[in-house]
Amino acid sequence: MIQTDILIIGAGPTGLFTVFEAGLLKLKCHLIDALPQPGGQCSELYPKKPIYDIPGFPEVLAGDLTSNLLEQGKQFEPGFTLGERAETIEKQEDGSFIVTTNKGTQHQAPVVAIAGGLGSFEPRKPLIENIANYEDHGVDYFIKDPEKYRGKRVVISGGGDSALDWSIFLADIASEVTLIHRRNEFRGALDSVEKVQELKLLGKINLVTPAEVVGVSGQNHIEGVTVKKGDEEFQLDTDFFIPLFGLSPKLGPIGNWGLEIEKNAIKVDNALDYQTNIPGIYAIGDVNTYPGKLKLILCGFHEATLMCQSAYKIINPGKKYVLKYTTVSGIDGFDGTRKEAPKAVVQAIV
Amino acid sequence: MIQTDILIIGAGPTGLFTVFEAGLLKLKCHLIDALPQPGGQCSELYPKKPIYDIPGFPEVLAGDLTSNLLEQGKQFEPGFTLGERAETIEKQEDGSFIVTTNKGTQHQAPVVAIAGGLGSFEPRKPLIENIANYEDHGVDYFIKDPEKYRGKRVVISGGGDSALDWSIFLADIASEVTLIHRRNEFRGALDSVEKVQELKLLGKINLVTPAEVVGVSGQNHIEGVTVKKGDEEFQLDTDFFIPLFGLSPKLGPIGNWGLEIEKNAIKVDNALDYQTNIPGIYAIGDVNTYPGKLKLILCGFHEATLMCQSAYKIINPGKKYVLKYTTVSGIDGFDGTRKEAPKAVVQAIV
Repeated sequence: MIQTDILIIGAGPTGLFTVFEAGLLKLKCHLIDALPQPGGQCSELYPKKPIYDIPGFPEVLAGDLTSNLLEQGKQFEPGFTLGERAETIEKQEDGSFIVTTNKGTQHQAPVVAIAGGLGSFEPRKPLIENIANYEDHGVDYFIKDPEKYRGKRVVISGGGDSALDWSIFLADIASEVTLIHRRNEFRGALDSVEKVQELKLLGKINLVTPAEVVGVSGQNHIEGVTVKKGDEEFQLDTDFFIPLFGLSPKLGPIGNWGLEIEKNAIKVDNALDYQTNIPGIYAIGDVNTYPGKLKLILCGFHEATLMCQSAYKIINPGKKYVLKYTTVSGIDGFDGTRKEAPKAVVQAIV
Repeated sequence: MIQTDILIIGAGPTGLFTVFEAGLLKLKCHLIDALPQPGGQCSELYPKKPIYDIPGFPEVLAGDLTSNLLEQGKQFEPGFTLGERAETIEKQEDGSFIVTTNKGTQHQAPVVAIAGGLGSFEPRKPLIENIANYEDHGVDYFIKDPEKYRGKRVVISGGGDSALDWSIFLADIASEVTLIHRRNEFRGALDSVEKVQELKLLGKINLVTPAEVVGVSGQNHIEGVTVKKGDEEFQLDTDFFIPLFGLSPKLGPIGNWGLEIEKNAIKVDNALDYQTNIPGIYAIGDVNTYPGKLKLILCGFHEATLMCQSAYKIINPGKKYVLKYTTVSGIDGFDGTRKEAPKAVVQAIV
């Protein structure tokens, strides 16, 4: 059982910044996310796209924002349960909560902060009857660890940035990369499209278009896919099939936790601390709603910060916290590091 | 009369970010600040100090944060009335407000956003009976334009960073710089103290310590100061006397605008839009208060953003604004510039 002070569901920008603000209050955080890496949408959907409305950044790439937030919180040593989806929550007699993921990992904390963004990102799956049998047995909807594919044959399907970028990346790792798309046209960053064109001409990516994967086969593990091109169908041997058709956000199991839901978002008390109708459970960032709510990253940062103050009172009943300014007081990391502004010296001039 | 959409009182980080968020809604801003440059406390009190709790910046110097915010808003062409303090406000029949500064500058806007931080920074003045007579006649508490002192004799008084830094800076501009402090010890950044020591030894700064300026004299303009060192008093001819004893924040005249005040801050409706008890007047950032309020820069950013949405409705009655994401829609500046994420291309790979 993983124990922590604040259990954060969702490792997007709001969840990551919560680690920092909680750390200032000496509260420890653990994050659960269905995606295989932290950053939420910013890492998964648009890491190379600029955001213009993060205060103090005239322009920042979504992926860089994620890296910065990880760096900002790292001295508070957050724990991560990645690639798993928070499934159930149970309130204990002592007031704490136990959250269990779809893979059975259990987490216990006195405070739960749902920072789930638009929901957990579920991959769009191809309409192939028996594909579910091969999930985790050669069919992957996310790429968690590219090393898994070293020296293997890989079939990637899709026509957007993910399909293009992973085909490029795996061209150097896999023994064979086949990219299949139902159109000749791809939609993505210009340099990605050009790079795939180049790798195709070099024979490092096999391109099959316009075509579709319509079947998967194999004993316990995938061994081949059936490809339909025009009126023709043919078999292609492969070790992995990776359909990258995009993600669609779903509030998912959290919708059944007894929380008050409005317009597919969780209602919170914005006049105080972004707590939900269940005491001890907060909702911050894009996942919540209240009068005047704006689904902006900068609003999540504020909500996270106020939430941590309220969580502090639950975790340390009766104790009073006095706000300290980081510029004045510095930051003491849980890892023993200390950051502080250079002190003024008092020195005679003679 | 200066006309604008949102008149912002206070050009600190919250006020500056308001320019950006208002700009996204095609609303124009004008800022009034008592200090001679934008940035508020960040520029005036601790430009070289690091802040650790701005989301996405593991560390940022307060002065750099100010520059970034100015850069982020510049395409929305904000106007500035600097070095003047907002003194009076009058509501007009058409619902707009006229705000007049201590120097008589008038501004008209349908919405006023008070982003006044801890208040306007009033200089701590030396206790010299007739000093008020020489204010703006050779006695300056702020340095607005260093060029003013070119080739002139300057007496600076004080023992902190401002006194040290300006003595260093003016050593190359003024014909003569005298630094007077009531102790031999100075309190400041190590390199500033060392630099003053060096300039003193080179004869570029005259140092008089421990000593105090106890009198000022001259016809219409200052001509000299009386310095007390131990039991001795002597006259020192000078063209300027610049006491830099620090600033203390005062809510000031805004306290008499009929706004509901609590604990020296302005009460606002945090459950909706950070509006004060006077419709059309908002208070954002450190100047406001509400249950759970934290005086943090990042909270000011959120408050500014929600406030702009509410201001939009006052300025464009009946019009509905649909939130657009900068990553998706880009930004159209009032100066004709456009920022946008590189577009995806749709291209065949052959």
